[in-house]
Amino acid sequence: MTYCAAIRLKDGMVFASDTRTNAGVDHISTFRKLYRYGIEGERFMVLQTAGSLATSQAVFTKLQNAIDQRHENNLNSVLTLFDGAQMVGECMRSVTAHAQAVANDNSGTFTSSFLLGGQIKGQPPELYMIYPEGNCIKATKDTPFFQLGEIKYGKPILDRSVNYETDVEHAAQALMLSFDSTIRANLSVGMPVDFVIYQNDSLTLPKGRRIDEKDEYFDSICQKWSEALRHTLIELPQCPDSYWE
Amino acid sequence: MTYCAAIRLKDGMVFASDTRTNAGVDHISTFRKLYRYGIEGERFMVLQTAGSLATSQAVFTKLQNAIDQRHENNLNSVLTLFDGAQMVGECMRSVTAHAQAVANDNSGTFTSSFLLGGQIKGQPPELYMIYPEGNCIKATKDTPFFQLGEIKYGKPILDRSVNYETDVEHAAQALMLSFDSTIRANLSVGMPVDFVIYQNDSLTLPKGRRIDEKDEYFDSICQKWSEALRHTLIELPQCPDSYWE
Repeated sequence: MTYCAAIRLKDGMVFASDTRTNAGVDHISTFRKLYRYGIEGERFMVLQTAGSLATSQAVFTKLQNAIDQRHENNLNSVLTLFDGAQMVGECMRSVTAHAQAVANDNSGTFTSSFLLGGQIKGQPPELYMIYPEGNCIKATKDTPFFQLGEIKYGKPILDRSVNYETDVEHAAQALMLSFDSTIRANLSVGMPVDFVIYQNDSLTLPKGRRIDEKDEYFDSICQKWSEALRHTLIELPQCPDSYWE
Repeated sequence: MTYCAAIRLKDGMVFASDTRTNAGVDHISTFRKLYRYGIEGERFMVLQTAGSLATSQAVFTKLQNAIDQRHENNLNSVLTLFDGAQMVGECMRSVTAHAQAVANDNSGTFTSSFLLGGQIKGQPPELYMIYPEGNCIKATKDTPFFQLGEIKYGKPILDRSVNYETDVEHAAQALMLSFDSTIRANLSVGMPVDFVIYQNDSLTLPKGRRIDEKDEYFDSICQKWSEALRHTLIELPQCPDSYWE
């Protein structure tokens, strides 16, 4: 399994992906599922994935090869983020179609999904979710975040605490707590978690951190959160005597 | 879909079930999925369900008929909660097997799951989860709550705030928040929600409430919780400058 999420805010973006992959509970590995692209001062992109690791890695490799070999169309040459999302979708579709044809298996075993976020100079920052079918949707002010994979455990904290106006630091903290909730609940989502934060219009390759089990700041956030929740629960208004009938 | 949960605590038990059923988003109905049984001063039980509504209703009906028609074996005559759980499992298995045979469909369309909690005089309170196969497991001090149906959105709040020592009132509040998180996230889980609370050894038919959209107390709990979360998020320790690399 995988949990990854990305948030597009008024002032910036936050991205996070776990690194655990599993084929059964007795076959667990660590693989990076978040990659950064870009040209300092001109563009940056973050690509995240969930689904078939073979498909996802093939897509990452082909996209990187296109950059390295200076193909006419690559993530460093596309004119818009939308064109980048289309490129990811097409690349994924061709990888998946090949795997399905070779294995004669259309059940979905070989499908992946992606999130692509970033900014190209002179254009607004954008965030896309790219479906296994290769088509995509764009994050908006109404729906500022996307999640892939094991999304449910970590969604309530984002629903309750993140909107388009939230500042980057607090959105990053909320996303840490969202990962903590997910990692506690599902063994197939695990540390380390790759985080990236971006301030709009900086157009520098964004900062990030690989957060592991020994990360003191992450740990302090999660502990303070748990304590505050317990305290809040104790302080909630008492039930009126007549409430239970 | 359905969300239901039950918690067995040192001092009592809390049960809650939503009432929404759906066959597609354009076919939504309200059905009770939590029933109380018992004999004042001697025993009480709460039975909750998720899964095929036809199977669940047939099981509720057969169990109630057995009580009304004074069958030798019924929920008011079983010697232990475990025997009650076995009875529910066997009843469900026979209903499911019949439906599967008639429809020639073993895909799981007709399966249900149940939670059975309660207390019989002279015995400790117990809580069972009964699987679609008819077998069951019992809640323990280590694992004091069970959930059925759409369980993921509402699990982190229970994980973080409920353990065997939690008092009944706070566990009920945590369960309200767990339902609020789930209802916000999944359209197929909906109000009203049937709540029941029980104080151990009271052996009275327990108190309860059907909580709907206009419930002022439920609403105040959820609002205070959301406010506290937002406040807590703002107060979390700031990230050190060197954190993002």
